Amino acid sequence: MSTATFFHAGCPVCVSAEQGLTQAIDASRYTVEVVHLGERPEAVAVAEAAGVQSVPALVIDGTVFHINHGADLADLRA
Amino acid sequence: MSTATFFHAGCPVCVSAEQGLTQAIDASRYTVEVVHLGERPEAVAVAEAAGVQSVPALVIDGTVFHINHGADLADLRA
Repeated sequence: MSTATFFHAGCPVCVSAEQGLTQAIDASRYTVEVVHLGERPEAVAVAEAAGVQSVPALVIDGTVFHINHGADLADLRA
Repeated sequence: MSTATFFHAGCPVCVSAEQGLTQAIDASRYTVEVVHLGERPEAVAVAEAAGVQSVPALVIDGTVFHINHGADLADLRA
């Protein structure tokens, strides 16, 4: 089982990506984890370490996919 | 059955997105179509009409998701 982590910040672009793209992922092969950086500011460092530069972003097996552009990660730091 | 169309141009960013993201889509719910704009230049107009501005891009149920950035669509026009 692989892991797909969706990092977002609750922005409209993020919600669209979650509803349109993340939900399309095959749940029989991937454990999909959704991380709201606005609610979990401590996870910003985790996203950063994974290579995330902006949200929404989907990290699948260590590879970062930046999807459209909602906000820069730098703007989400406390 | 919904349709997910992946537009790409054979670039390294495109290949990464296809291997990492497109293949993660649930094939039991989505018909995944891959369109190589380098080999099918006539499809550039189709991508454009769908709202694609750069590749790689994934269009799911009419919503465009630009994934990372490989090349601008404008640069792929003949």
